[in-house]
Parts: sequence; C-alpha cells; structure tokens
Amino acid sequence: MAYFNTVNRIQFEGKQSRNPLAFKHYNKSEVVLGKTQEEHLRFAVAYWHTMTGGGSDPFGADTAIRPWNGYSGLDLAKVRVEAAFEFFTKIDAPYFCFHDRDIAPEGHSLKETNENLDVIVAQIKEHMKTSGVKLLWNTANMFSNPRFVHGAATTSNAEVYAYAAAQVKKGLETAVELGAENYVFWGGREGYESLLNTNLELELDNLARFYHMAIAYAKEIGFTGQFLIEPKPKEPSKHQYDYDAATSIAFLQKYGLDRHFKLNLEANHATLAGHTFEHELRVARINGMLGSIDANQGDLLLGWDTDEFPTDLYAVTLAMYEILKNGGLGSGGVNFDAKVRRSSFEPEDLFHAHIAGMDTFAKGLKVAAKLIEDGFFENIVSERYRSFQSGIGLDIVNGTTDFRKLEQYALAQDRIRNKSGKLELIKAQLNEYLFSV
Amino acid sequence: MAYFNTVNRIQFEGKQSRNPLAFKHYNKSEVVLGKTQEEHLRFAVAYWHTMTGGGSDPFGADTAIRPWNGYSGLDLAKVRVEAAFEFFTKIDAPYFCFHDRDIAPEGHSLKETNENLDVIVAQIKEHMKTSGVKLLWNTANMFSNPRFVHGAATTSNAEVYAYAAAQVKKGLETAVELGAENYVFWGGREGYESLLNTNLELELDNLARFYHMAIAYAKEIGFTGQFLIEPKPKEPSKHQYDYDAATSIAFLQKYGLDRHFKLNLEANHATLAGHTFEHELRVARINGMLGSIDANQGDLLLGWDTDEFPTDLYAVTLAMYEILKNGGLGSGGVNFDAKVRRSSFEPEDLFHAHIAGMDTFAKGLKVAAKLIEDGFFENIVSERYRSFQSGIGLDIVNGTTDFRKLEQYALAQDRIRNKSGKLELIKAQLNEYLFSV
Amino acid sequence: MAYFNTVNRIQFEGKQSRNPLAFKHYNKSEVVLGKTQEEHLRFAVAYWHTMTGGGSDPFGADTAIRPWNGYSGLDLAKVRVEAAFEFFTKIDAPYFCFHDRDIAPEGHSLKETNENLDVIVAQIKEHMKTSGVKLLWNTANMFSNPRFVHGAATTSNAEVYAYAAAQVKKGLETAVELGAENYVFWGGREGYESLLNTNLELELDNLARFYHMAIAYAKEIGFTGQFLIEPKPKEPSKHQYDYDAATSIAFLQKYGLDRHFKLNLEANHATLAGHTFEHELRVARINGMLGSIDANQGDLLLGWDTDEFPTDLYAVTLAMYEILKNGGLGSGGVNFDAKVRRSSFEPEDLFHAHIAGMDTFAKGLKVAAKLIEDGFFENIVSERYRSFQSGIGLDIVNGTTDFRKLEQYALAQDRIRNKSGKLELIKAQLNEYLFSV
Amino acid sequence: MAYFNTVNRIQFEGKQSRNPLAFKHYNKSEVVLGKTQEEHLRFAVAYWHTMTGGGSDPFGADTAIRPWNGYSGLDLAKVRVEAAFEFFTKIDAPYFCFHDRDIAPEGHSLKETNENLDVIVAQIKEHMKTSGVKLLWNTANMFSNPRFVHGAATTSNAEVYAYAAAQVKKGLETAVELGAENYVFWGGREGYESLLNTNLELELDNLARFYHMAIAYAKEIGFTGQFLIEPKPKEPSKHQYDYDAATSIAFLQKYGLDRHFKLNLEANHATLAGHTFEHELRVARINGMLGSIDANQGDLLLGWDTDEFPTDLYAVTLAMYEILKNGGLGSGGVNFDAKVRRSSFEPEDLFHAHIAGMDTFAKGLKVAAKLIEDGFFENIVSERYRSFQSGIGLDIVNGTTDFRKLEQYALAQDRIRNKSGKLELIKAQLNEYLFSV
Repeated sequence: MAYFNTVNRIQFEGKQSRNPLAFKHYNKSEVVLGKTQEEHLRFAVAYWHTMTGGGSDPFGADTAIRPWNGYSGLDLAKVRVEAAFEFFTKIDAPYFCFHDRDIAPEGHSLKETNENLDVIVAQIKEHMKTSGVKLLWNTANMFSNPRFVHGAATTSNAEVYAYAAAQVKKGLETAVELGAENYVFWGGREGYESLLNTNLELELDNLARFYHMAIAYAKEIGFTGQFLIEPKPKEPSKHQYDYDAATSIAFLQKYGLDRHFKLNLEANHATLAGHTFEHELRVARINGMLGSIDANQGDLLLGWDTDEFPTDLYAVTLAMYEILKNGGLGSGGVNFDAKVRRSSFEPEDLFHAHIAGMDTFAKGLKVAAKLIEDGFFENIVSERYRSFQSGIGLDIVNGTTDFRKLEQYALAQDRIRNKSGKLELIKAQLNEYLFSV
Repeated sequence: MAYFNTVNRIQFEGKQSRNPLAFKHYNKSEVVLGKTQEEHLRFAVAYWHTMTGGGSDPFGADTAIRPWNGYSGLDLAKVRVEAAFEFFTKIDAPYFCFHDRDIAPEGHSLKETNENLDVIVAQIKEHMKTSGVKLLWNTANMFSNPRFVHGAATTSNAEVYAYAAAQVKKGLETAVELGAENYVFWGGREGYESLLNTNLELELDNLARFYHMAIAYAKEIGFTGQFLIEPKPKEPSKHQYDYDAATSIAFLQKYGLDRHFKLNLEANHATLAGHTFEHELRVARINGMLGSIDANQGDLLLGWDTDEFPTDLYAVTLAMYEILKNGGLGSGGVNFDAKVRRSSFEPEDLFHAHIAGMDTFAKGLKVAAKLIEDGFFENIVSERYRSFQSGIGLDIVNGTTDFRKLEQYALAQDRIRNKSGKLELIKAQLNEYLFSV
Repeated sequence: MAYFNTVNRIQFEGKQSRNPLAFKHYNKSEVVLGKTQEEHLRFAVAYWHTMTGGGSDPFGADTAIRPWNGYSGLDLAKVRVEAAFEFFTKIDAPYFCFHDRDIAPEGHSLKETNENLDVIVAQIKEHMKTSGVKLLWNTANMFSNPRFVHGAATTSNAEVYAYAAAQVKKGLETAVELGAENYVFWGGREGYESLLNTNLELELDNLARFYHMAIAYAKEIGFTGQFLIEPKPKEPSKHQYDYDAATSIAFLQKYGLDRHFKLNLEANHATLAGHTFEHELRVARINGMLGSIDANQGDLLLGWDTDEFPTDLYAVTLAMYEILKNGGLGSGGVNFDAKVRRSSFEPEDLFHAHIAGMDTFAKGLKVAAKLIEDGFFENIVSERYRSFQSGIGLDIVNGTTDFRKLEQYALAQDRIRNKSGKLELIKAQLNEYLFSV
Repeated sequence: MAYFNTVNRIQFEGKQSRNPLAFKHYNKSEVVLGKTQEEHLRFAVAYWHTMTGGGSDPFGADTAIRPWNGYSGLDLAKVRVEAAFEFFTKIDAPYFCFHDRDIAPEGHSLKETNENLDVIVAQIKEHMKTSGVKLLWNTANMFSNPRFVHGAATTSNAEVYAYAAAQVKKGLETAVELGAENYVFWGGREGYESLLNTNLELELDNLARFYHMAIAYAKEIGFTGQFLIEPKPKEPSKHQYDYDAATSIAFLQKYGLDRHFKLNLEANHATLAGHTFEHELRVARINGMLGSIDANQGDLLLGWDTDEFPTDLYAVTLAMYEILKNGGLGSGGVNFDAKVRRSSFEPEDLFHAHIAGMDTFAKGLKVAAKLIEDGFFENIVSERYRSFQSGIGLDIVNGTTDFRKLEQYALAQDRIRNKSGKLELIKAQLNEYLFSV
C-alpha cells in the first residue's frame, strides 16, 4: 500500500463534508428499495483508463504522473497490479474490468504473449483472493496492434481472424480462471474505413461465425458468465458494425445469437450514435438485452469519445431509473469507462474522478428510487395511455380487431380529443426530485 | 396542356446541348447492361413536393408561383391533377407517388374526406389511362393533422389509432384501384418527443399489430404490391422508430414481419442517421430488403432534411452501383422526394430541378455500369479477401473449424502480413471513371 | 381577464409546494447580492411563441388550443393583446418582446400594414400603462413574408432593401412610442442559401450600410435604447451572417459599428454554432458586448432550433454566473424565446412552461450568487494563473519583455512543472452547489 | 535515392494513362489563365504526415511501413531528411512545410533541442540547394509535449509561455535560415478544455502579446515572410480560440494585428466549424486575408479531423475558384496537410495519395479557370444583383440615401417582384463543367 500514499481509504462522510476525498452520497451499506447501494451499483474500475492510460491524445504525448512511471515490460505490468488493487481497495470498488493487453505486454510471439498474461493473471488472482475485489468482465484488445488494421473477426485476412480467435480463446480461459461474471466484445476495428473496398456481407457472416465459435468454446470450458456486446457507431472505424443497441439486436437476431448475448451500453457511445443514454437502455430493456453499463459521459458539442467521468445528474438519474425498472443489471455492473482529463494528470485526480462518478450514481440511484416509490413516471404513462386499457384500445392490444372494425369505429367517432403531453410540467417536477432528494 | 405553357416536352439532346430544358444524359431508350435507362431508373415524381408544396419553412410562408395558385378546396385538387399529368408527361417520368392528403383535401368528417379522395382518385385513374403514367406507390399522411400530435399507429390515444387504421385501409383500397406497385409507410410521428412520458414498448407492439392488420387487409382485398418502410431517424419527432435500415430490420425481425416488407431508402434520411446513402442501400441489399429509393440529397453541414434534388455524382454513382448489384429495384423505383429551394420559386425551376436529378442519375447509372463491366470493385474485393478462398480461410467460411484449431494455426504462424487497403488509389481511379464515362 | 380563466395569478409558494401553478424558486422580492430577484432577472415573455405561435412544424399544422382561436385579422390581433396582458400579469413577467408582425397582420400595402400596426400599438400602450408591464425590446420580422426570400438588408433586390428599411424605420418609431429599452436585429434571411449565386461582399457591405442608417434614424427620432444583434449560425438560411458572437463582433468591428451594438445571445443558437451558452456569454462579456439573452434550450442531439423552455440547471447556473459577473444585463433582460412543445397544446401548458423556466433561472441565480459569494471560480482561476502575478509572468502581462528575454528565461529553467487543472473535482464541487443551494 | 526504390519520378501521362504512378491531370508546365499549373498551385508536402506520421490513432499503434523504420533519435531524423527530399523530388513538389519537432527530436534541455534542430536544418539547407525544393512555411509544435497541456501562448503557467516564446524565436530564425516564405501559427492547445477553470480574457490578451512580440522579433532579424494563422474550432482542445476565419479576424482586429497576418485555411477545419471550405476562403478573400491553404478533406459524417487527401472535385473546384479570384495565393501555396489512411500503410500509398490530391487540384484549377473564362458565376451574380447598379439600388451602395427616402420609395412601390435564384439549374450546369473540362 505504497503507491497512492497521499490518499487514505475513501469514506462516506455525507453531503456536509468539505473533504474532497470523501463520499458525499455513496454510502454503500445504505438500503434503497430493499438492496444496499453497493448491491445496486456494482461499481467497477476500468483498468485501461485508470491503470494503463497516460493521457495521450492524437496531438500530444502522455501527461500522467503515475507511481509506475519509469518501469517497463513485465515489471511495469506487475507494479501496476499492485497499485491497481491498492486503488480498488481505497476507492472501495467491488469490481474491475480489463482488456488482455491492459494487464500484460505483448511478447514476440503469441506464445510469449500468452505466457506474459499467465504471469499477471496469477498475480491478479492472488490479489483478488486477499482483497475480495472481483472481476466484472474481461475482454480482448483486438484493435491496438497493427495486425488488426483491417479488423479482427471482420478482417480481410484469414490469418488475422485465426489470431483473433486464439486471443478470445485465451480470454475465455482467463475469464474462467478469474471468475469473471461476464465477457465483453467491443469491436473497435470491426467495421469499415470505406465501403469502396469492403465485402460487408462476408465480414458480417464471419463475425457471426466467430461468436458461434466463442459460445461453443465457452460451453466446452465451463464459462457460465454472460456474453456482452458493446455498441459504438464510429471511432476508430468510420463505421462500426455494432452501431447502436438496435443495430446490434438486428445482427444477433439474424444470426440466431440473441439468446446468448446481452448488451453492455455506454453513455458516450449512445450520444455518438445520436441517442440519449436512456434511449439505448430502454431499447435494450424492452428486448431483454440490458446486461451492463459503461458509465461515462461525452461532450455533445464534440464528435469523438471523450469518456468523461459521469457527473450530469439528469442523465445518471434516468439511467438508474432504467436499471431499476430492469430489476437491476444481473451479473452486470456500473463500469467507469472514463478517463481523467489530460489536464488532470496528478494521481489524486484518479480519486477525485471516481468519487465524482460514484457520488453522482449514488445520488442518481436515490432520486430514481424515489421516483419509483412515488410512481412518478408510471402514473404519467398509465394516465396517458389509459385508452388502451378498455374498449377499442383493449381490443387493439389483445389483437381482437381488424382494419374493418377500426374503420367502423373511426367513422362513428365524433371529434377526436387528445390530451397535452405536459412535458414542461414533467421537466419542472423532475427538477424538484433532483434538487431535493 | 396549358399549365406549364412556357415549357415543351423535355428531349434528350446530349451533353453538347446548351438548352437548359433538355436532357444531357437521360436518354431513356439507351441500353445499359441489357436494359434501357428507363427500365433501370423507373423515375417517379413526388406529388407532395412538386404539386402540393409551396416553399414554406418554419420561418416563412410559401413563395412558389404555381399555375394553381388562387384555387382552393376540391377545385384546387382538381386543377393540380391536370397540371400534374402535364408535368409528368413533359418531364417524361413514367411514375408518380403521393400521400392521400397531397391529392385531396380533408373534409369535415372521415366520410367526407374519403369522398373527396374518391373524386380525385377517379380523375387520376382517367389520366393514368390516357397518359400511361403509373403509380409507383401511395401512402397515408398521418403526420400533418393535429390529431396525430402523439403519433398514429404509435399514438397514446386509441381513437387516433383507429383513425389511422381507417386511413391506411382506404390507402390500400386506393392502391388497388390505381394499380400501385408498392405501398409505403413513413412514420413522421411514429416516435417520441421525450421518453419521460412514453411507453416505448406498448407503442412498438401496437405498431407491429398495425402492420399485421395491414397485411391481412391487403391480402383480403387482393393488393399484391410490395410493402415498404421508409427509415428516418428524427424530424419531426425527436426520435423516430424507423431510425435507419438496421433499426427497421431489427423491428421487422422481432415481430415476424420481415418477409412482408422491404425498405424505401432516402439519401437525406441516411445522412441524418449518420450513414452514407450507399451504406443504407448495402445493409438493405445484403438482407434482401432493398425495395425502392427516395432520390434526393441533404446538406451534411445542416441538421435537418433539406430534400435537395440529387446532383452529387459521387453519391449517385455509388447508389446506382448498389441498385445494379441488387438486380435492380424490382417493383420499386427512383422517386424524387426532393423539393426546389424556397428561392427557386418559378414554375420552370421544377423542370430544371427534375432534369438535374434525372441527368445525374442517368450519368450515375452509366458510370456504375462501366464499373461493373470492368469488375472494378469486384476485383478489388476479390483480391483483398483472397485468403478466405482456400485453406484456413475457407474452413472459416465453411464453418469447419473452431477456436482450438484456429489457435493452433495462429501459434504456428510466423509474422502476419497484411496488405494495404489502397483507398487513395481507389478514389483516384474512381474519379477517372466519373469524369470520363 | 377572461381568457385564461382556469389559472390565477402565479404566486411564490416555495419548494415544499405541490401546486403545479406556483413558483417554487422565483420569489421576486427576495434579495440576492443586493438586488431583488426581479431586478436581476428582468423576465420577458416572447409574444411570437406564446401569443402568435400555434405549434405547427414543417410536417404538421397548428395544434394549440388558444382562447383566441376562431378570430382572424385585426380582431384576432386585438383579442391576442387582451389575452397577452392577462398572461403577462398572471405569470408576473415585468417585460415582453415582439416582432412587428406578431402583434398586427400585414395589409394589402405597406401603408395599410403600418395602419394595422398603429391600431395595435395604441392598444398595447394603453395596456402597458394600466398593467405596468414594459417592452424589453421590439424587432422587425423580415423573414416570413415571401418578399424576403433572398434576404432583407442582404437581399439581391434593391426594392426589398428599401422595404426592409421602411419596416425598421417604423420599428424604431414603435420602440420610441412604447418606450422599448432595446431594439433587436435577428437576421433569419440575412445569409445565403448557396455561395454559387451570392455576392457575399456586397451583401455584407449593404448590411453595414443598413445598420448605419438605422443608427442615424434612431438618433434623429430620439430612440435611446440599446441596439442588439442576435447571432444564429443557420436556419432558416443555410448560412447566416451573424453566425455567433465572435463572427458578429468581427463584422461590427470591421464596419465601425461596435460601439453602437451589443449582442442578444440565445442558448439554442449557441449550441447550433457548436458552442456552449456560457461560452457565447463569456465572449460577449469580455468584449463589453453582453446586452441581453434569449432564454431557452436546444436538444443537442437534434440539428435545428427546438426553442425549449430552459430547465437544465447546469446551463442556467453558468449563464447566470456570466450575467452576474457582467454586472447584470443593463437595459437587457431574460426573454423566454421558447415555445411549448407541439404536444403541450393546452393553455395551461403556457403557464407550466414559463414557471419551469422562471424557477430554473431563479434557482440558477441563487446558485450563481452563492458561487460568487464563496469566490468559487475566482479562487480556482486566481490560483491557477498565479504565475502571471509576479516575475516573468507579470512582465508578460505588463508588456515589459520580449522574445530574447523570454528565451533567456526558458534556457535557464530547470524542468517546468505544471499543476493539474482538477476538472473532475471542480465538477463534483459544482454539483454540490447545485443540489444544496 | 534509395528509400523509395520501387517508384520513379512521377510524370504527366494524361488521362488515358492506366499507370497508377503517373499524373493524369497535373501537367506542371501547362499554361492556364496566363500562368503555369506549377505557378498556380505551388504544391507543398507536409513533413509531419508524410515523413513523421506512422498511422497511429487513439485506439491503435503505428502501422506504416517506412524505409526509416528501425532508426531512432537524430539518426532517424537524418534518414528522414534524405528520404524526404527523394520523395519531394519524385513527386515533383516544389515546396514542403514542417513543425520544428517533425524534423528533429527534442533533447534533454531546450539548448540540446535547439542543437538537434541546428544539425537537421543544416542538412535540409544543403538538400534545398541541390534539389531546388523550397520551404513554403515552418511552424512550432507547441501541442505534443506534455508541458503544453494547458496551452502555450495561452497557458496558465508563465514558465510555459516563456518556453513557447523561445521556441517561436528559434522558429523564426529557422525561417530566415531556410528562406521560408511564410510562418504559420496553429494553436492546437490554444483554447480551453472547460470554461470552469479558464481565464478567457487573460489567455486572449496573452496570445495577442505573444503575436506582437513575434512580429517585433521577425522585424529585428529580417524575416520578411508572411505570418499566417490557421483556424480550427476544436480538437485537441474542446474549444480553440482560432475557431474559424471570422473568429480569427475578430481577434486580429481587436488587438491591432490584422495588417500583420493572413489566414492559412484548411478544408477539414472548415467543415469541423460547420462551414464549407469555399465559405472560409471567401470570408478571408473579401477581408484581404487569404494567405495559404491546407489541402485535405474531412468526412462530414465524422466529428474529428480525418485529414484525407483531397479527391472531391466539387469542393476542390470551388476552392480553386476562390483562389483564382484572389489573384492567387501570393507567397502561400497548396500544402497537403493530409495523411494516408491507417490502412494504406505501404510506401507506395504515399505516392498514390499525393498523385490523387495533385491531380484533383490540377483538374479543379482547369475547371475553375474555364468557369472564369466563361464568366459563369460572374454573369449569374451580375444579373442577380442588377438592381444595385442604378436607381435606388445605386443610392444604397453609394451611401446617398437614408431611411426616410427608402420608406418613401417602399410606400410608392407596387408589388415587389423577386426572381428565382435558380440553384438547381446552376448546379446542373456546374456538373457539366466538372464532367467535361
């Protein structure tokens, strides 16, 4: 416990506290709607942003001051694991997530790469045992290495496809070894740069074949976690195949994969696709596909993934509402796929950022719970759609009518009367919930 | 033949012609890849923009100088039909398309509205017979009238749903009466203004019920045309359910509707959803869903549907390539869902605009045909994906491998070698096709 | 007082109130930083949205149920004035704003149009006297009538330019007659549809000439109010000349107009230009150009002006911070250039919407005042830029250094040490202000 | 001449050529409007993309196969210079451009960094002499090094400001040494991440002070080239101060810098700011500020700078039209600030890409010249604005009228008659120019 030595374990001190290194809202043992905050929120730290990332952007080098600066290779990887578990423990996060290449460096061959991974996985397993921190999900980084320049499971090169298969195979074995509760696919290079040189149909067929092989292998080795697909519309690819929730569902349905997968939805990916986060969550929810979330926020005036820590209480409250209505996230959780700004390069910023995100989600949870206890949205919707609960409306819902009967009804109707949707009042009332809970 | 009396029937004069009222590229009897240009392109005039629209926008009133200005009610509707067929004939368009409310005014009751429609449909039928112009598709306007403020088939008010059903019932009867080759659904109000007061699941279920009833009724009355859904992501709704091709396909698959529908894709709707037009066409094509197109173009620096006449040869050539690879559009066609700019308010502008669009499509057809004759894209793709035609690649495609075998292959591989995607060269070569065909 | 008879005068009841027709935060006589809320906020109702607008959009007709439905022509205009002052009084707004064509209909000639205006202006003047409600600003609608299809002061037609001059002349006379505290220019058609047929230079020169003539005429008739330009980047024009604050300032500087004008900034126009509202306010403030605001909010996922009532407390707090730092808005105010959603078509929605906006601004004012009392941002900035308060930094600010001296300094420097910008902590702290004030 | 040994010097072979390594349109000695293509176009190669860049993006490592891979430090820098001049010569580019850090590595101190630079500058000078290739402009990279995390001339840290001054001082000396025809400022970090911790006014004042010192020093050392500012709205900063042409002009005017600077405009930066490239060029042109261009193109469906090689003939023709109307670019030129796609990683792609760009500009030049020879746009504009050439219109332009006279004119006017803007016809005619020249 020597890497973040200026910071102690973060405690709940409540909203009166002026201590910037304390929780104001996240009180993990507080019971909300019958479960503790900790059980509801299942927070996870993203290894790539918090441990591996250094603050570089397309126009500039790393800025981050980190306790592991100066190390390299496997030594660096090992020091990071030590520091990581210190961080997880101090921030009181019950889970973490990683890509294979976040935790261990590539070797000169696939064999050596896998050996590197084995060393670090063993170290992590030991730390998990002693700390009690668990693995929410792991995944394979099949986008950073130049070999994936044309894609991984959607590459134009069969050798690369084989390599990707080997990588996911190892990833599933890692998931079993560490007891991961989910396994995620995010396809940063699964898309195209241009249709001009792309066989879209073959690439999608191959992607489906890849998933079917993954399912078969998971079954074979006894991985019982949930498979998750993470939609994102673009970046780094010009177009990515898992554009948004609906596009991903269309793909999964077409290839008979829908019962094997759920979605891992990210706020910033939603907005890049032109949707609100709550929209994506709702689409997944009504399709039984809401699996887990990547908690962050984007800048809607910018066109790339800024992966900011989530602090917008409006968005977070509506996200938590969807999650509560979903009966929670099951084996999923709230993973902070978020990075400190390049200009927040001091180690303490990592704590400030996670506290900001965790407190916002804790407050969002409490507001959403109050909205549900009061039946706030439920009453609005029930009143608004009342006409479908009896008469011709009920016939429609029950499927006991047809165009002839509906025309007879319409011809006989006097003037149709609609009621106001009252959105301005609803927004004002929602504001009162946010500011007063 | 007295409404557009300054303009004669538009003739093909070839590219040397300086006559602004002549075709430079559209030579309908010219044979391209075994069919005439006319058979390939199946041009249709959009009644709403060209006959009914007047140039208003959210900040200003109608500007259009039209031969029917001064008329109103059914008289206006009748004069418009006369002028419309004069226009169709002079511009030499074999097809037209309309919404019910484009051609005839609403009455004080549904019954009266239907009677108005009957009068005009009879008049149109007569004109179709004498002119030979055919109906590509018709549809129901279920977005302009205030009753549809909360949606039509996705309304919160069952009475409105019944009204919409009656309107589509009449629309299908009109389709049969006029021999429409397709029937289109575009859901301008089928979406939501805000999730805060919306029952997303019920609305989508109701929409599916509506389509099933439409299919049943079409069968009952012997309508054998193709049903088409037209995706658009937003506007007028904040979110529309038929967001894009993939979203529409997800919906159709989920509700068992996919074999009854194809898509009517629009260029400007594609770009509003964040896609190129060729992307949407490709997605539909590989799913067997490419039915028809709404030919126009948007301004990618603006966030609303500008519905400009298509003049960008890059986009049009790639669209025609997809259509040719689809084996044509079947019962569909190229409908100019495009309007003259508000500042192009003189009657002749209608001709200039259609000539611009038709010539661009004719030229795009010829360039696309030449690309196909030369196997331009086919050679690029075939070379690029060669590794899937034998060995491990063929095993992947044939489904005769698994993760264990692929890992063995990958472990045994020396350094993986990718080849350049050569996009800059491809774009330069494509430019030569465009400028020289 | 019979038009909004279901609603009484809105009272402050505080945040415990469950009455949807009461203020929760707007307590006009409460003193904040030495002035009453009323003095700080200077709320105005926008005649066009609240009295004249009916809910139409590009795809649908008016939906609004209004007490004046059924009237037309001057009668309609007169009834609207009665209802308007009832509304202003009941909502307790001290100001209103209008375009000439909002309040009175156009006649068959300019002369008749002016006479219509005279009738209504006289009626309004009487109501102002008895009610105490004042005119924040008026302006000329030079975008709705087809004559302005190519622009008004930037038209390609000199006759239209003359007409626009006559209209603004009358507008300035109206401003004097009614004691308007400002006069606004918003150029909905002052821009271009395409550069292909536009003489950009002549149009801008003519616009400057127009403003100089307006200034001269205002002086001549004794109008002493503030001239304001309202930036907007696009819509209805493809490009509008007053794109954003910086562009407007560049124009005013170039033509020697900067000392005669300030800016009227709108939240939704800021975001359409790619900026936050606080950015536009800041740019105006540091240039001494912050004159007044149009209070609303847009939907950042949509590309057009949605003009929603402002309910986002984050944006409103930062806006009020800029206004307080500006020493208030002077003769300007907070004008609700916002419209109820098309689906909020009942008369009461007008009250709900204004209450939502006024309460959000009242709360934003109080949070911003607390931030200033605590020196929250001032301390952050003072600490962050401390290096410019002495030594080499002070030399830079004082202009007493040069590149040679700075190079000497740099060459002598050991390793440069930057400090974290701490944005995550700042956002968390800002959240606590918002939720607890 | 051993680095690009698969490629010979690129020759003009004309459009019949099937040789992918030949010019189809760029015939440097061909005379167009009285000057050679070479004199018009003044092509420059961008050192950073073509020599230094390796294809990394935020999600992946370098992919480029380059002859200098394997070298490092000063050795790498030296090999790159050899290869660079081979490339410039083979591609037949008369100019190149660089940032200081593109050509030489940073050392452990500013002194060592400057010494590294001296070594390479001497090597470059020698190559310039023997090859005849000239330096269009140089600039300082004040965005990649972590010290610039908070900005350079707009930093919050005075030490960094001094460092930036030293760097530009050296840059100006380099410009003199190598005879650069211009010196460019692009401020990738001159902006802000968030207004919450930013002193906008101080930062802008300091930026102006910086420019004044640069001008003074340039004068002192006899640098007579043109100073250029390159606008970009965002990326890497959330907001950059030189947002677009108008914003940059506003800044330069305010601080009395406008006569010392012109603008270096980039196509992709224009579209990121919401403008067409031709718009930015026109704005600069009518303000006497059009200095040079960065030739590339963006993807309008993506929100970041893709810096693609320019192949869109529509955009390039309109850009060349503005340049010709400007009387050329003076000391400026056409710099390919463009990079091969990450997937175009082979050395030959660099040639294909530059040929694509150069041929598109050569063709665009010829089309634009033909448009000017025919007076195409001039006739449209002259006809459209005819009313300002006599009578009331001329009075307006001459400033010999006022609001009273204009009102008299308007009151006396019968119905105003506008003429169609005929954009559809103009676009069709423009297409014929593009396809036939």
